[in-house]
Amino acid sequence: MMRTKAAVAVEAGKPLEVMEVNLEGPMAGEVLVEIKATGLCHTDEFTRSGDDPEGIFPVILGHEGAGVVVELGEGVTSLEVGDHVIPLYTPECRECEYCLNPKTNLCQSIRSTQGQGLLPDGSTRFSMLDGTPIHHYMGCSTFANHTVVPEIALAKVRKDAPFDKICYIGCGVTTGIGAVINTAKVEIGSRGVVFGLGGIGLNVIQGLRMAGADQIVGVDLNDSKIEMATKFGMTDFVNPSKVEGDLVAHLVELTNGGADYTFDATGNVGVMRTALEAAHKGWGESIIIGVAPAGAEISTRPFQLVTGRSWRGTAFGGASGRTDVPKIVDWYMDGKIEIDPMITHKLTLDDINHGFDLMHEGKSIRAVVEF
Amino acid sequence: MMRTKAAVAVEAGKPLEVMEVNLEGPMAGEVLVEIKATGLCHTDEFTRSGDDPEGIFPVILGHEGAGVVVELGEGVTSLEVGDHVIPLYTPECRECEYCLNPKTNLCQSIRSTQGQGLLPDGSTRFSMLDGTPIHHYMGCSTFANHTVVPEIALAKVRKDAPFDKICYIGCGVTTGIGAVINTAKVEIGSRGVVFGLGGIGLNVIQGLRMAGADQIVGVDLNDSKIEMATKFGMTDFVNPSKVEGDLVAHLVELTNGGADYTFDATGNVGVMRTALEAAHKGWGESIIIGVAPAGAEISTRPFQLVTGRSWRGTAFGGASGRTDVPKIVDWYMDGKIEIDPMITHKLTLDDINHGFDLMHEGKSIRAVVEF
Ligand SMILES: NC(=O)c1ccc[n+]([C@@H]2O[C@H](COP(=O)([O-])OP(=O)(O)OC[C@H]3O[C@@H](n4cnc5c(N)ncnc54)[C@H](O)[C@@H]3O)[C@@H](O)[C@H]2O)c1
Ligand SMILES: NC(=O)c1ccc[n+]([C@@H]2O[C@H](COP(=O)([O-])OP(=O)(O)OC[C@H]3O[C@@H](n4cnc5c(N)ncnc54)[C@H](O)[C@@H]3O)[C@@H](O)[C@H]2O)c1
Repeated sequence: MMRTKAAVAVEAGKPLEVMEVNLEGPMAGEVLVEIKATGLCHTDEFTRSGDDPEGIFPVILGHEGAGVVVELGEGVTSLEVGDHVIPLYTPECRECEYCLNPKTNLCQSIRSTQGQGLLPDGSTRFSMLDGTPIHHYMGCSTFANHTVVPEIALAKVRKDAPFDKICYIGCGVTTGIGAVINTAKVEIGSRGVVFGLGGIGLNVIQGLRMAGADQIVGVDLNDSKIEMATKFGMTDFVNPSKVEGDLVAHLVELTNGGADYTFDATGNVGVMRTALEAAHKGWGESIIIGVAPAGAEISTRPFQLVTGRSWRGTAFGGASGRTDVPKIVDWYMDGKIEIDPMITHKLTLDDINHGFDLMHEGKSIRAVVEF
Repeated sequence: MMRTKAAVAVEAGKPLEVMEVNLEGPMAGEVLVEIKATGLCHTDEFTRSGDDPEGIFPVILGHEGAGVVVELGEGVTSLEVGDHVIPLYTPECRECEYCLNPKTNLCQSIRSTQGQGLLPDGSTRFSMLDGTPIHHYMGCSTFANHTVVPEIALAKVRKDAPFDKICYIGCGVTTGIGAVINTAKVEIGSRGVVFGLGGIGLNVIQGLRMAGADQIVGVDLNDSKIEMATKFGMTDFVNPSKVEGDLVAHLVELTNGGADYTFDATGNVGVMRTALEAAHKGWGESIIIGVAPAGAEISTRPFQLVTGRSWRGTAFGGASGRTDVPKIVDWYMDGKIEIDPMITHKLTLDDINHGFDLMHEGKSIRAVVEF
């Protein structure tokens, strides 16, 4: 049992409280990690705010981290003390029915306990100083200086990569680039449309550039996104509030009959429909990345599908984390992808609530907390 | 100009009227075909009844025929007089952007005129004896003893195949089997669920058997479909009206976590949603074959897609008709697929309206008119 400093979501809708907490050492198959940096993602805020009907409190949020292995639980063989790691909210056990099926990355081996905010043995390692258990979040809980994570949920990465940049690969970068590469499998010369040019959408854009797309259309209500998106590869920008007439028709014309691939990175179900219908007849695929509000539904006329569009989704960019995340870290270190310009704000843990304010104000792409 | 006998849909919602009509000879790129047999499909009835908002009258319906080439228009090189042919409502020009893209079968070369009930030059070959033009239907108009069809919309098939069976390959057989083979690309050992065991659904079932599926679940409200579906390969039957509790949960349990592939062959948008949600998390694909009533919409929570299901559709089973239809005729002649038991009724052209009654009573799988 040790003590560490963490930002605790004590109650839904309240600011996080930075405090000392108890942390038990790693049990069999688990690893104690010192977190060096963590990004703030909308999913954290979705839970913090109380909008997520499945949110459990008290909890230590955060799922976009990077750190160093401090201690190994019994039987851990794939990692050593001192290894640099990125925690994975989608683990990769390499043994379950899902891991053995190349069509999916949704490893199910620890899913039920993870969904309940527990480690695989059904308990938590974190507690308040008064002994009240604190839940884990997405199996990661990176808003703490130290955390305990199952071995199968840690990607080992090279040691020369900077924590304050590669933490973003733990969610946003991989989700956006992976949606293009793993889920859509975009071919060279394709035309793509990306709805929402935030922390996810920008990574979809650089994924499309990497995949050799000929046209990369960005769609956002906020013109201030143009500069950054252009830097990442956007070739055309559309602000729906400035389009006269039908947005689908406008996009279909702009893409010469519809895009080969469209991506929703807004989480708005109306946008998801537009994205599907702006995909090319016959072969266009639309990929949902955004997470919609609880209970919201997508809809369209089935004719859209019968005439050859397909509607798909992606979680963690279809990436198998232990296999793919180290490669994406290499891509970053080799200059194949960019991350630095997207890390718009650096914070200390004590200032973490300010990061959520920046998010709401649309001022940050990514705010990163450094420990 | 010749005369031929046809069943004419003079007005929406009225029975067809069997009469002599004028037929002009084939123009450049067109072929005069003597129809020997034609099936009656729901799509014909959708238009006849007036439910299709795009229906145009007067019109000669029918799109599931087989016959013999009688005369070639100027420049026709791929066919000879005496060839046996199946008219294609989805043509295959092998030159347009769609034909050259292996992801789609939706040849667009004559689409706009076809949708207006006209041949490619923008006029009709059929007229009433008083000279009133009669529209073509889906480029085929097989409810006539003779019809004129563009060369690119005729599949040349072997001469020993019986017209009264292979006419069904012009729509139902190819749509059902093709949905499995071309659109879903079902792998050996898959589990499939087919909703609706009518003329399309039975062919999905035999497609699944051909593709080597391990489990083939049929879902229909009508228990009388069990016998025929079992004959074609169904391994499990579910009547939704007899399931207590949630149908999706029942199907997911029956298929050990959800089906790899599900198919809607009902045209009911509620069924389409059930079909999507009964597909396996992570990799299940749901294929819409059924044509929904005008204006009806499908919907679901986007989470269904984000967790790995995909929603797709198929038209004419994804088949490129001139290439694929002759192969399916071979499969029939070689005993790889069955058609005979599905041709439940034979009619003469004079009795054609009786065929629509049988359809409504759910008594026929396919009624075929022989000339
Ligand atoms: N599927 C996954 O694995 C996964 C992982 C992480 C995040 N997400 C989801 O991805 C979505 C995007 O996340 P983000 O961090 O990029 O958010 P963000 O707030 O940084 O970006 C959203 C962007 O969408 C724009 N936008 C909002 N409404 C719009 C509309 N109607 N039309 C056009 N643009 C609109 C905003 O201006 C903003 O630029 C969220 O829903 C998030 O929950 C999904
Ligand atoms: N996409 C294409 O290219 C294409 C081509 C031809 C036909 N179609 C469409 O395919 C659909 C099926 O055609 P068909 O000729 O097989 O029709 P059919 O009437 O012969 O069969 C429909 C079957 O569905 C069953 N059914 C109806 N409602 C149901 C429900 N709620 N749950 C379960 N079963 C239900 C009926 O009992 C019947 O057995 C139609 O919508 C038709 O328009 C599509």
